[in-house]
Order: sequence, then C-alpha cells, then structure tokens
Amino acid sequence: MPRFFVSADVLQSTTATLEGEHAAHIKVLRMGPGEALTLCDGQGHEADGIIEAVSHDGVQVALGEVRASASEPKLKCSVYMGFPKADKFEHVVQKATELGAYEIVIFPCARSISKPDAKSLAKKLERWQKIAVSAAEQCGRGYIPQVLALASFDEAVQRACKAEFSALFYENEHTLSLRRAVEERPFSTAALMTGPEGGLTEAEVNTAHAAGMSVCSLGPRILRCETAPLCALSAVLYAANELA
Amino acid sequence: MPRFFVSADVLQSTTATLEGEHAAHIKVLRMGPGEALTLCDGQGHEADGIIEAVSHDGVQVALGEVRASASEPKLKCSVYMGFPKADKFEHVVQKATELGAYEIVIFPCARSISKPDAKSLAKKLERWQKIAVSAAEQCGRGYIPQVLALASFDEAVQRACKAEFSALFYENEHTLSLRRAVEERPFSTAALMTGPEGGLTEAEVNTAHAAGMSVCSLGPRILRCETAPLCALSAVLYAANELA
Repeated sequence: MPRFFVSADVLQSTTATLEGEHAAHIKVLRMGPGEALTLCDGQGHEADGIIEAVSHDGVQVALGEVRASASEPKLKCSVYMGFPKADKFEHVVQKATELGAYEIVIFPCARSISKPDAKSLAKKLERWQKIAVSAAEQCGRGYIPQVLALASFDEAVQRACKAEFSALFYENEHTLSLRRAVEERPFSTAALMTGPEGGLTEAEVNTAHAAGMSVCSLGPRILRCETAPLCALSAVLYAANELA
Repeated sequence: MPRFFVSADVLQSTTATLEGEHAAHIKVLRMGPGEALTLCDGQGHEADGIIEAVSHDGVQVALGEVRASASEPKLKCSVYMGFPKADKFEHVVQKATELGAYEIVIFPCARSISKPDAKSLAKKLERWQKIAVSAAEQCGRGYIPQVLALASFDEAVQRACKAEFSALFYENEHTLSLRRAVEERPFSTAALMTGPEGGLTEAEVNTAHAAGMSVCSLGPRILRCETAPLCALSAVLYAANELA
C-alpha cells in the first residue's frame, strides 16, 4: 500500500487533503476514489485511509484510526560515520534508513578529506534528509531517521557514548569482536561508529575508548568505509532480533 | 600491505616476476627494492614477498613461505540473486566479496526485467568477475568468489538447496525469521537467495520451499533488492562468528 509522510496534526482528523508532491504522486500512480493508502507522521504513528476524491484542489482522504507503526525496530540504533568522500554518505543514508537506523550522524575525522563548510553542509544536510524521507517511505518505515552533522570527532564520541551500547569499529582491533561486545548485556539504544576512507587514527580510537566506547573488530576483511556501517547495523539488528 | 592475485604456480617458487598490470600498479604505488607485499593465489593460499628489483622487464620478488590465508571465513556462504535492473548486481558483487561471500550467483526470475542474452551475459560475467577480483584484492581476501550465472530459477534452487543451510528471503513471510532458521542447527555451507526488484512470485517461493529451502523474513521493512542480500550475508556471517 502506498505510504505518505504527513505532519503529525493531519492524523488527528478523520479526513485529510493531500496537496503538492503527494497529490502529484497519487495522480502518477493513477489512484482514484476507493483506493487505500497509508498516512504516516514519520514519528511512529500511522493511519490507513481511503481516497474519496481526486481533483485540482488535491486528494481527499477519509482516515481510519491512528496506530503505532509496526515496522519500527524497538532498538534505537544510531549510525555515526566520519565524513567520507563524494556521495558515499548518500548511499549510507539510504541503506541505513532501509535497514532500520534510528538516526544517522556525520562528523569530521582527522583523515576525512571532505570537510564541507557551513553553507555547503546545510545544503547537503537538506539533501541527505530528503534521501532518508524517500527511503523511509519506500521501505515502509513509520519513523524518519534524523540526519545530523556534528562539528568534531570529540562531539560525536560524547554523543555516541550516551547510548547503552556504543561501539567504534577499528580494523586494527584484533581481540574484541562485535559479537562479544553485543552479547555482554542487553541494550535498547546503540551507537555504531566508523571512520572515513583512510580509517580512524590511533588517537581517535584512544579518545573513543577512554570515553567508554567498545572498540570492536568486524573481522579480518578490510571493509570499505561505506560498507562497514551497513554491515555493523545489519549484524546488530540481527542480534537484537529486529530482522524478524 | 599491498596484495596481488597471481596464478597458483607462482607461489611454488622462491622468486616471482610480476609483469603487466601488477608491475604497473607497483610502479604507481612507487614501491621499490626492500618493500613488502603479499602474493595470493585467490584459492586461499598466500606468501609474503620482498621486492628485489623494479625494471622495464617487471618486478622481481623474493617469496617467503606459503600459508593459508587468514582472512577467509570458515563458513562458505553463497549469495543467490535474481537478475536485477541496471548495475545493481555490480554493487552486490563488490559488497558481497568484501563481506566474505564464497560465490555469487545470478539467475533469471519471473519478475526479472533484465534478462541478458548469452552473448551479453558472457561479457557481463567477465566484468562481474573482475569486480570480484578487485574487491577481493582491496579488502585483503585470500579467495576470489566465483561469479556464476544460471539459466533458470529452478536450476538456482536445485543448486542452492545443496548447501547445509539454504534460505530464500520473502517479504510476505511473517512467521520464520532468519535468526530462528539460522539457529536450528550448525552448518558450514550456506546459500542465501533473494529476488529482483519486483520480488519473487508465490510460485517461486513454493518451488524453493518444496525443494527444502527455508523461507525467511528479514523483518517488516521492505529492503531494496540490492540491500537484502548484503543484509542477510552480514547477519549470517555475524551469526557464524565470522565478523571477528
């Protein structure tokens, strides 16, 4: 069933009028009166609706009861990634949203080659957030992950280590596997941190470790910077029984 | 340490001469006498070497003892994917190789839009195999996954169900999670099958089920066709303790 994200107040009423992009999309789908769709507030609430009329003024929808979205993981798992080059972060935003990330956070690292200035970052954030919205719509999520940019690695560590489980993945870590770290104790919030193309520096790893993050391995194969966060997210969601 | 795939007989000797692409690559890396590299046969064996000379005739390398590669998963996990559109399979070949797939198999499904003819398929296979080689080199694997194309869905099912664990992922399956299927019993070979953009048909799912494959869910979020195999592979490698 097609899904559209609307503002939360729309769900408070028994009817809704969809305009602009949503109305255009419904016309492209050639949907008409009697057909069903789902409206979702992107904050975990949704309601099914039936199209009553399609006109130049928009699409009239009769709305059913509001319910909690059934497709959201209970585990709130945030993905933290050091600024990579080019459009790799777009890929990570799209895939992490599909997989079920709670939020997606980007920050500069010592070895980040791309460190956009404030103006270009604002534009990029807008673009990344749109990618998250569209991926969330397509995969049927009830919650739109926030895409956030932080000013420094230290700020990222401070924020990440507030999660009940926080891990930093480091290719030179050979003793602690993600699985051993995950199995230590149950958690309902998680932060998974990975570096840019060149990897994290030893100083960064030490900072994260000192702040209380688990420094983990993802195995002996060196994953590309855009593969590592998605592999870790898939594994942690699997471990938390969220791929079920 | 840079890694180069060579034919198996090269490792049998105490010296090797690298020519062509490998020699050119070593020159691009500005490597010279005394520097170390690894030669690997792509079948799980490798040897460290020291450059002795770089000349127009090639790169002379003194080779150490041959050992089994340490970066290969014990679990032989094959990825089976229905023909998707455009270049999505290239993405899957690259990422599945990095993650540690044993082989990557493509086949036509009822809803596959792209079904290349024999001639264009041969070209594509060559290209996909090159992508696997280059991804294997970059991530430090000791084994190059074979990329195979099968003629039909039925053939894919017959081959996949020979693995000790074989699962087909279906978005309309709501009872059996991958985790429950994985935890049923230990296995050393696995086959993970996913469909093209439009998904698998009920008839295809029934065929796979009848042949003995587990029909599993990857959770309530509808993953894109290129995301599902990589998510499943990450999860199964995690479960088999291969991300350690």
